Amino acid sequence: MQPIALIHTPFKEKFAIPRQPSLAPAACGIVELLPPFNDPLALEGLDQVSHIWLLFEFHAVGAQNDSLRVRPPRLGGNDKLGVFATRSTHRPNGLGLSVVKLDKVSGTRLYVSGVDLLDGTPIVDIKPYVPYVDAIDNAYNRIADASPACIQVTFSPEALQQAQQHSLRLGQEVYALVEQCLAQDPKPAYQQPTPERVYAVRLWDIDLRWRYLHAKHIEVISLS
Amino acid sequence: MQPIALIHTPFKEKFAIPRQPSLAPAACGIVELLPPFNDPLALEGLDQVSHIWLLFEFHAVGAQNDSLRVRPPRLGGNDKLGVFATRSTHRPNGLGLSVVKLDKVSGTRLYVSGVDLLDGTPIVDIKPYVPYVDAIDNAYNRIADASPACIQVTFSPEALQQAQQHSLRLGQEVYALVEQCLAQDPKPAYQQPTPERVYAVRLWDIDLRWRYLHAKHIEVISLS
Repeated sequence: MQPIALIHTPFKEKFAIPRQPSLAPAACGIVELLPPFNDPLALEGLDQVSHIWLLFEFHAVGAQNDSLRVRPPRLGGNDKLGVFATRSTHRPNGLGLSVVKLDKVSGTRLYVSGVDLLDGTPIVDIKPYVPYVDAIDNAYNRIADASPACIQVTFSPEALQQAQQHSLRLGQEVYALVEQCLAQDPKPAYQQPTPERVYAVRLWDIDLRWRYLHAKHIEVISLS
Repeated sequence: MQPIALIHTPFKEKFAIPRQPSLAPAACGIVELLPPFNDPLALEGLDQVSHIWLLFEFHAVGAQNDSLRVRPPRLGGNDKLGVFATRSTHRPNGLGLSVVKLDKVSGTRLYVSGVDLLDGTPIVDIKPYVPYVDAIDNAYNRIADASPACIQVTFSPEALQQAQQHSLRLGQEVYALVEQCLAQDPKPAYQQPTPERVYAVRLWDIDLRWRYLHAKHIEVISLS
């Protein structure tokens, strides 16, 4: 098993990465083929496909955890489920699976959006999405039956101005990405933050800082 | 990387296996967890899920083929596409991905249907299907935009009687499985068979034989 590509994404830390790929459409990434697979011919035909599966290694989960039960964030961190009933990053063989939107094919690079992968994640396979097989109309999952409810996100005047400046500098939708990621409420579910507590994470080269005005309302403090 | 399970399926040969998992709903399989993962706790919660992803090794594809272009059966075996634009079995890292219906969880076994895996395929991960993420309404794939058209399948009187006997003996829907697999027209697209040419494949312990009355009409000769 060897990586066939690496993905470049805004996410420099695990904290605040969307927990599923569809939750932050503004999260863009570039999949770059690695030698000996870095030949445009390997991607021939992908321009006819709207979405792709990325199979990847959870390369930053730390020491291998052999537990067969995990505590999904979805359940508030209290209840355990069998690892194979979850999409947890802590799993035997450490393989991840994400479907992302394919915006452009260019040489040996794929421009994608809706990513939920840490920057530098090794990709072990790319497969086209096949709607008539992969999109199952009548499927259900009673553990995760819909997107988690979003919380409110507002920007301080300073943060708003900084977001606009970074957008111009990076050529990225910084405001939308910050809003979409924070609306997922990245903090652990068991925490009850006071407005004095400041949270921070790095996106691209930006230090993003926010606080909770109350449990369901984030204020973005700054993007420095 | 180590197998976490094996799957038992009716398919003893690669020939005539449906080319996607949804095409033969009567194709049932049993996923059996392997040590040290063979603990019912690893599956806790899966009873709340209708479908699962199987990540598996294409263990029977023969010598590693490092070609970055493949000839998908879909295109009649003539045109080449980049390997990452196809779900071809011949691919770097040899990983497969199939979604199957989860009919029952029992101890360390998962009873599934709609399988397209060879008997004995090593499974390297099981993940729950998450409809709000995995089922993408507006996705398109212009290489494979719908199920291939089915061809007609009829049974000789002898074959029909044999199918009924095998169904009772095995407790399986033999007739439906044979019909669904052959309706996909398993022969290579470039072949122009005469009615004298007999095709054969093994399903469970049954030798299935058929011929083409014409290009779009199969007659099942016998199941012995």
